Amino acid sequence: MRHPLRILKSLFLHRPTANPQRRGVCGAGMRLVQFHRHGEGGGIRVGVEQGEGLSVVDLKAFEPSMPSTMRELLELGDKGLECAQRALSSGQCVVERSDITLLSPVLAPEKVVCVGMNYRDHCLEQNAPIPKEPIIFSKFPSAITGPYDDIILPAESQEVDWEVELAFVIGRRGKHIKAEDALSYVAGFSVANDVSARDWQMKRNGKQWLLGKTFDSFCPLGPALVTTDAVRDPHNLGVRCLVNGDTVQSSNTDQMIFKTEALVAWVSKFVTLIPGDVFLTGTPPGVGVFRKPPIFLKKGDVVECQIDQLGSIINKVV
Amino acid sequence: MRHPLRILKSLFLHRPTANPQRRGVCGAGMRLVQFHRHGEGGGIRVGVEQGEGLSVVDLKAFEPSMPSTMRELLELGDKGLECAQRALSSGQCVVERSDITLLSPVLAPEKVVCVGMNYRDHCLEQNAPIPKEPIIFSKFPSAITGPYDDIILPAESQEVDWEVELAFVIGRRGKHIKAEDALSYVAGFSVANDVSARDWQMKRNGKQWLLGKTFDSFCPLGPALVTTDAVRDPHNLGVRCLVNGDTVQSSNTDQMIFKTEALVAWVSKFVTLIPGDVFLTGTPPGVGVFRKPPIFLKKGDVVECQIDQLGSIINKVV
Repeated sequence: MRHPLRILKSLFLHRPTANPQRRGVCGAGMRLVQFHRHGEGGGIRVGVEQGEGLSVVDLKAFEPSMPSTMRELLELGDKGLECAQRALSSGQCVVERSDITLLSPVLAPEKVVCVGMNYRDHCLEQNAPIPKEPIIFSKFPSAITGPYDDIILPAESQEVDWEVELAFVIGRRGKHIKAEDALSYVAGFSVANDVSARDWQMKRNGKQWLLGKTFDSFCPLGPALVTTDAVRDPHNLGVRCLVNGDTVQSSNTDQMIFKTEALVAWVSKFVTLIPGDVFLTGTPPGVGVFRKPPIFLKKGDVVECQIDQLGSIINKVV
Repeated sequence: MRHPLRILKSLFLHRPTANPQRRGVCGAGMRLVQFHRHGEGGGIRVGVEQGEGLSVVDLKAFEPSMPSTMRELLELGDKGLECAQRALSSGQCVVERSDITLLSPVLAPEKVVCVGMNYRDHCLEQNAPIPKEPIIFSKFPSAITGPYDDIILPAESQEVDWEVELAFVIGRRGKHIKAEDALSYVAGFSVANDVSARDWQMKRNGKQWLLGKTFDSFCPLGPALVTTDAVRDPHNLGVRCLVNGDTVQSSNTDQMIFKTEALVAWVSKFVTLIPGDVFLTGTPPGVGVFRKPPIFLKKGDVVECQIDQLGSIINKVV
């Protein structure tokens, strides 16, 4: 059952026009981005998309006291999101897409938390049992790259693979968070590619996955951080990965074994979560390594990861 | 063979008095620390110890344009270290130990890179083969805690263990660093305790070590960042761990299989290293899990990790 207010929000979500009813509503229906303006020294800015792929409101131009990075914006809590909402509603300080380059919506988080084996259909694909607990690993934040940036094929690996994943970003500090409260700690959702060097992940480094997962550029993320209240049901979204235009992964987040709430609750038993922490929630079937014969990425390939309501990221392999 | 200049430096290293010969010598013989002054709102400051356990020169008090965190200081490169050297030589802006609390010398690094199975004698202890390549895993930066802070025993683990380790900190950005150049990328050395929940590391989480290694407070670090040129030979240092005064680990960094240079070269094949990145280089034998019967930490235990020339960290288990 969809709540009438949610239907109303979804109608307004992609409209660039000012909506007085949304003023002051914390984070209602925003697509937050990071970008830099061409020809201005390349500093990071935070913005709000007027709709998927549309022009962007420059938050710091609207309100100079606002920070320049998403992590700092999230640290401000409601105050920051309310200001972003006012900026969006104002219709002012708009920059054209042709004048900016979109960056990953979060850079330099304290943590990139990744989940393995978290889709039922991906477990079936490799004849693996359904995990009874989440399997948590990590990437270093240095792996994060922009939604349209290149994936750099390292000379050290011959088996680089794709993994489209639903990502989410923590919006406020917490430890031992209860599952029923967990969504209030999530600022929003995004699309990630958990690029994986299978040789390093599966055969080397004492079978610790880290190195195979964390080469520079192995975490394309974006295009936007879509705030939680703008996503109707994060666990019922179509998820697809296309390589050179061919669909290689196609599933739905309803296949996730441990959903957002469970993952926040689980990981916060171990560590304090803070604003900006990025979670990658696992991938559906269709990765290259389990194909017969296996297929891996090569120079010149173009990988597109799409998730309903969130958008798509497109990365060339170089 | 010790170089005469090194002997000279070591003679001066712990002297608080100004030494004109050292002025302008980048980072010569410094013990860099982070601290906060009591009763001043608790902000982080960078300082230089006048000798191990002695008073600290407050860098920002000496030169207000200097940053407040070690990571920012390291990002300044030689300029920052030269200023720290001038501050130390000045004998000014000295704060007493009783007026400060020492923090970990680095907080919020981009990476905490850990190495498994890196002592010959630790491999023998568990009948494991000597690795042919470094085994790399990680902790989240949220695990870092101060040199005299408490280790928080999580309710989720019954098998929390100690691991004294030589730590080093990256001083400048690099990728694909050659082993012969690697030490010039290392700002200095410190002492760490790679606290480990063996149940989570060895039996759960799909045998990915991350969760067992990264509970909050599982990375005591300090007391100082001893600059590279102040350490005569980082691979010939006595390393000890004491639990409640009993020596449980006693070895030497000459037992390290992959030394600092090799680790920098190896990890920088995968990721770009940046100032502030922390490496934990593995532990010698004597950990609790391989004792017969195994011994684990309990509330009230006091763990002291000591490394020659670097100092010791003392953490109570609560």
